[in-house]
Amino acid sequence: MSEKKRRRGDAGPSALGKKSRPASRAEELRKQLKPDADILASVLKMCAASKAASSSSKTLTLSDLNLSSACREVSDRDSSSVLLSIERAALDAAFSILSGSGFSFDVPSRSSSNQLYVPELDRIVLREKTSSRPFASLSTVRKATITARVLSLIHAVLRRNIHVTKRDLFYTDVKLFQDQTHSDAVLDDVSCMLGCTRSSLHVVASEKGVVVGRLVFYDDGDRIDCTKMGIGGKAIPPNIDRVGNIESDALFILLVEKDAAFMRLAEDRFYNRFPCIIVTAKGQPDVATRLFLKRMKTELKLPVLALVDSDPYGLKILSVYMCGSKNMSYDSSNLTTPDIKWLGVRPSDLEKYQIPEQCRLPMTDQDVKAGKDLLEEDFVKRNEGWVEELEAMVKTRQKAEIQALSSFGFQYLTEVYLPLKIQQQDWL
Amino acid sequence: MSEKKRRRGDAGPSALGKKSRPASRAEELRKQLKPDADILASVLKMCAASKAASSSSKTLTLSDLNLSSACREVSDRDSSSVLLSIERAALDAAFSILSGSGFSFDVPSRSSSNQLYVPELDRIVLREKTSSRPFASLSTVRKATITARVLSLIHAVLRRNIHVTKRDLFYTDVKLFQDQTHSDAVLDDVSCMLGCTRSSLHVVASEKGVVVGRLVFYDDGDRIDCTKMGIGGKAIPPNIDRVGNIESDALFILLVEKDAAFMRLAEDRFYNRFPCIIVTAKGQPDVATRLFLKRMKTELKLPVLALVDSDPYGLKILSVYMCGSKNMSYDSSNLTTPDIKWLGVRPSDLEKYQIPEQCRLPMTDQDVKAGKDLLEEDFVKRNEGWVEELEAMVKTRQKAEIQALSSFGFQYLTEVYLPLKIQQQDWL
Repeated sequence: MSEKKRRRGDAGPSALGKKSRPASRAEELRKQLKPDADILASVLKMCAASKAASSSSKTLTLSDLNLSSACREVSDRDSSSVLLSIERAALDAAFSILSGSGFSFDVPSRSSSNQLYVPELDRIVLREKTSSRPFASLSTVRKATITARVLSLIHAVLRRNIHVTKRDLFYTDVKLFQDQTHSDAVLDDVSCMLGCTRSSLHVVASEKGVVVGRLVFYDDGDRIDCTKMGIGGKAIPPNIDRVGNIESDALFILLVEKDAAFMRLAEDRFYNRFPCIIVTAKGQPDVATRLFLKRMKTELKLPVLALVDSDPYGLKILSVYMCGSKNMSYDSSNLTTPDIKWLGVRPSDLEKYQIPEQCRLPMTDQDVKAGKDLLEEDFVKRNEGWVEELEAMVKTRQKAEIQALSSFGFQYLTEVYLPLKIQQQDWL
Repeated sequence: MSEKKRRRGDAGPSALGKKSRPASRAEELRKQLKPDADILASVLKMCAASKAASSSSKTLTLSDLNLSSACREVSDRDSSSVLLSIERAALDAAFSILSGSGFSFDVPSRSSSNQLYVPELDRIVLREKTSSRPFASLSTVRKATITARVLSLIHAVLRRNIHVTKRDLFYTDVKLFQDQTHSDAVLDDVSCMLGCTRSSLHVVASEKGVVVGRLVFYDDGDRIDCTKMGIGGKAIPPNIDRVGNIESDALFILLVEKDAAFMRLAEDRFYNRFPCIIVTAKGQPDVATRLFLKRMKTELKLPVLALVDSDPYGLKILSVYMCGSKNMSYDSSNLTTPDIKWLGVRPSDLEKYQIPEQCRLPMTDQDVKAGKDLLEEDFVKRNEGWVEELEAMVKTRQKAEIQALSSFGFQYLTEVYLPLKIQQQDWL
């Protein structure tokens, strides 16, 4: 074996012991790589285009579309203004009671019939419908009470200037809330009522995401330099409102679905060869990572390239980053990052890079159904390239993970696949 | 509500709207708190005792117990020595083939009948039994081939000085491995054969853990100061062999089961009031976090206090940190951290802190069974206090989460519960 190895040199584990076809294709592609300076030129072009696009065409808002009275969105607001709104709501209730009319909350409806996909914005927003929640009604007394309690708890949290989780909130009055779904739902109601994001209420979700690369920011006053975060990277903070002073000399943001690919990129310090910021939520994106990506994209105006598995779930993950999830549609402008480019692994890459047959996985019936469902989604239909790729995936019934690229060598991802993708501007 | 709030002041959300009993108990306990200097004195005492214990009684090893010939353990080894061992194995095979005897690997058995709990070490180790894996036998030819292939892949990884995941390894030869469980199992075999840890083979698991507090270390050459990691904390690196120069002025390590409690501690910068290092694996401990905790404990000789949910799974999590899991028993000395103190939340705390009835959860039959099973485990039986607590849990059939403490105010955990626990040296 020692002999074998020497013959093989450092070409990686793939050079021998494989059918020659895919391996030779892998080498062929490696030879197509231009010098890094040339590849960087493509990146610079993309970066400039992205910055120009975001400065010339300002981001559309509901009011640009004359929808601000018909639709409802929340925005980030500072604590003192949220405190004032809560106190205003309490005063309104008190006046109403004193005038003999009892009290009632006016709560925006979050049901799907009140949701609207706005193609110009490429995301889901809430329509204007609200419903009344009177205290003096048998059907709403409980919800009205919970609403008052949640308002008062949020007031306490904001006054102390701390952050809590939904679970903490639930535990402060289990007797009233009974089930966490009840306090969670009212928390979303309160967010819509006050017109502010959940972050502005200082209620945070646990974070899963990590970031590494050409990025400097402040986390609760501490300066974080993400080029000096080793291989482990920096955990993305749960409370986005304490993140500030985002700076970067990166040319793009590389959004990675999986942990393992993130580790490869971090260990190879990919960001030193191609100046970029590398982010992952380790699977399904959590709120903290989505907020963080949005903040970076908005402030740095960098293009976002996505590296996900070639299966319907990879694309679904992209859709969550781009268009949001339905149950938080009222907060879509803060949570969603439009215009993410699908870099790979795309169904067409399976042929282009000749991923060996045995590294492709057959799609189950459920996978195929998920793929077909995606073809019906507006955010897919808008992008012809995506439709073609997805149709090909459903037709061939084949999927592949990012890690299937390891079949050409452990570092094929960072040494050949990504550089070539960027050189060829091969994204959709 | 605005009025209500003013009366309540900043006492947190608990002061009103609760039955007075638990809330007044909460206040009573708050009054028992001594000044921080006094509490720190208890911590110093504990820290000194822990350092004395670890310097006077050196950690027992298999050879101290005359078990080194009967039992097998792996240890961390540097890349060049592992490379030599692999080349030696290859040469042995070549000589054997040239002498006309074909070749065979001698593989330690990892079956449960070959495992042994050593009470003096308080962990599971492997006995010495090995089995032969000849190439020239129909029943073992496949496994022998896979073993040779894995050895050669690991050789390539070590020569390039990179790290890969088990999944990467699998994808380099899907045709041979067929299923990832096959390459994973042989990887464990190879680890035992070569007598080195999986980290020494540069095969890493994805990390989930985060750390914050009075700790400075190097991650792949980057200096990480964990007092300057904001609220998000530093992601624990997947490759422990690139972690070095661990330094700390902490007095203890606080091991936290859950993310939400970690966030509370990080936001309140608990480590500034009581010098400590705060670690969480966000639930079930992963290998990277276990290795990291072990390294910290060994190098800094600090006591470890654990904060877990009061349910059988909280204790199970402790058992994984302390005694390891059965399927990696050959690596138990590197993965396990003995002598973790169970700080809370303990079943007796439910009464002591008068956690309100509605914040306690009924145990399911499955929970009770898990509790009873734990009572049969050696690592529980060795600690009388643990047995009593666990018996009480099973008897009352009540469990509680760490976050149940939020019912006394969002910061009760950091302001009262933990300081009082430490002041009273209330751990088992």
